[in-house]
Amino acid sequence: MIKLEQGERIDDLMTDTGLHIIQSREVFSFSLDAVLLARFATIPKKGKLLDLCTGNGVIPLLLTTRTEATIDGVEIQPRLADMARRSVQMNGLEHRVTIIEEDLRQFSKRINGQYDAVTVNPPYMAADSGDHNDNEHYSIARHEVHCTLEDVIEACSRAVRTGGKVSMVHRPSRFIDIVETMRKWRLEPKRIQFIHPKKDKEANMVLIEAIRDGKPELKVLPSVVVYE
Amino acid sequence: MIKLEQGERIDDLMTDTGLHIIQSREVFSFSLDAVLLARFATIPKKGKLLDLCTGNGVIPLLLTTRTEATIDGVEIQPRLADMARRSVQMNGLEHRVTIIEEDLRQFSKRINGQYDAVTVNPPYMAADSGDHNDNEHYSIARHEVHCTLEDVIEACSRAVRTGGKVSMVHRPSRFIDIVETMRKWRLEPKRIQFIHPKKDKEANMVLIEAIRDGKPELKVLPSVVVYE
Repeated sequence: MIKLEQGERIDDLMTDTGLHIIQSREVFSFSLDAVLLARFATIPKKGKLLDLCTGNGVIPLLLTTRTEATIDGVEIQPRLADMARRSVQMNGLEHRVTIIEEDLRQFSKRINGQYDAVTVNPPYMAADSGDHNDNEHYSIARHEVHCTLEDVIEACSRAVRTGGKVSMVHRPSRFIDIVETMRKWRLEPKRIQFIHPKKDKEANMVLIEAIRDGKPELKVLPSVVVYE
Repeated sequence: MIKLEQGERIDDLMTDTGLHIIQSREVFSFSLDAVLLARFATIPKKGKLLDLCTGNGVIPLLLTTRTEATIDGVEIQPRLADMARRSVQMNGLEHRVTIIEEDLRQFSKRINGQYDAVTVNPPYMAADSGDHNDNEHYSIARHEVHCTLEDVIEACSRAVRTGGKVSMVHRPSRFIDIVETMRKWRLEPKRIQFIHPKKDKEANMVLIEAIRDGKPELKVLPSVVVYE
């Protein structure tokens, strides 16, 4: 029996394998971004995967439906890491998914290319940007409080093996910064997909997959329109 | 009366202003890329515009329907520059459009930010890539024989004033190289649009607009699907 903290609920992840996840309106709920990333990322059938900024562990949970690989999820916030761990237990996935409570800047110093693929749904907003959420948990998840975009990309680059894939979801406004910083860290963008809220609206999300030490040649997938 | 060379024909540009253009299957015909670029580019109502790699002058001609600015078109190939000049004459636009026969690498050395906006539909393929067209005119227009991508971007950057816009059409496969090189030359990508041949196909063209010394913040416009 999994213990729920105050305000927590259990949501159905709507997978064929019947996965469920612990969420909380006050602390953290995953968003469409994570679901789109878990679908977009090219994932090896076996091996060792890593999800950075894992939050309540939604991406590792969803990836278990697509691979037999083991998956490590790294989360800096103790409250969220605890939620993620209890969700992993609740789904009986302790043998495949490990939640690591750590600052990714520390984590990235002690790893060295041992992962076959990395996913990350990082904070989108600059630390100094306005409209910080009063709620600290949301603020940390959304703003670059504990890590900058470059910290995230550096950690991805250090974690993945040569030829391994790094997949990220982010805001299109930062796209040029992302690809420039990826190249700086030897991650070559190879596949991108833009998400538009409606057919005639600007993109509000971008999915990017890079290959460590890959050859420059980008593919732009058909756009996704969320509400058609 | 405009003299047509052997193999040349006159095509209707389907504009409200009744523009026509001289083309030749053996020498040069414009493609959809140029039409999309002429529509995509943000063009000031007045001032001084530049079109690099102008070919038979299709972009300057189309832009006359959108602005009262004067437009210079630069083309390295004498045969194409001559076609472009005759098309300008044929449309009675000599007072607004000037065709300059020159290597853009030379041209860019003698200009200094005097243009309000620049458009360019450069060669897409690396000089050393396969399937060169046996026809020299097409080969020069399509391959980086006389100028590399960086030569083109450097010329755009030198030509445009601070705050002026540079618009380019290119292949998505080169997109990361383009935006990285643009930033190197102080052109900040601000608006992009991908063109997909069909809704469920990868993009085969990208339109990019950058601002000289602009602030980083990208907008991704709704995709264009050519055959719906």
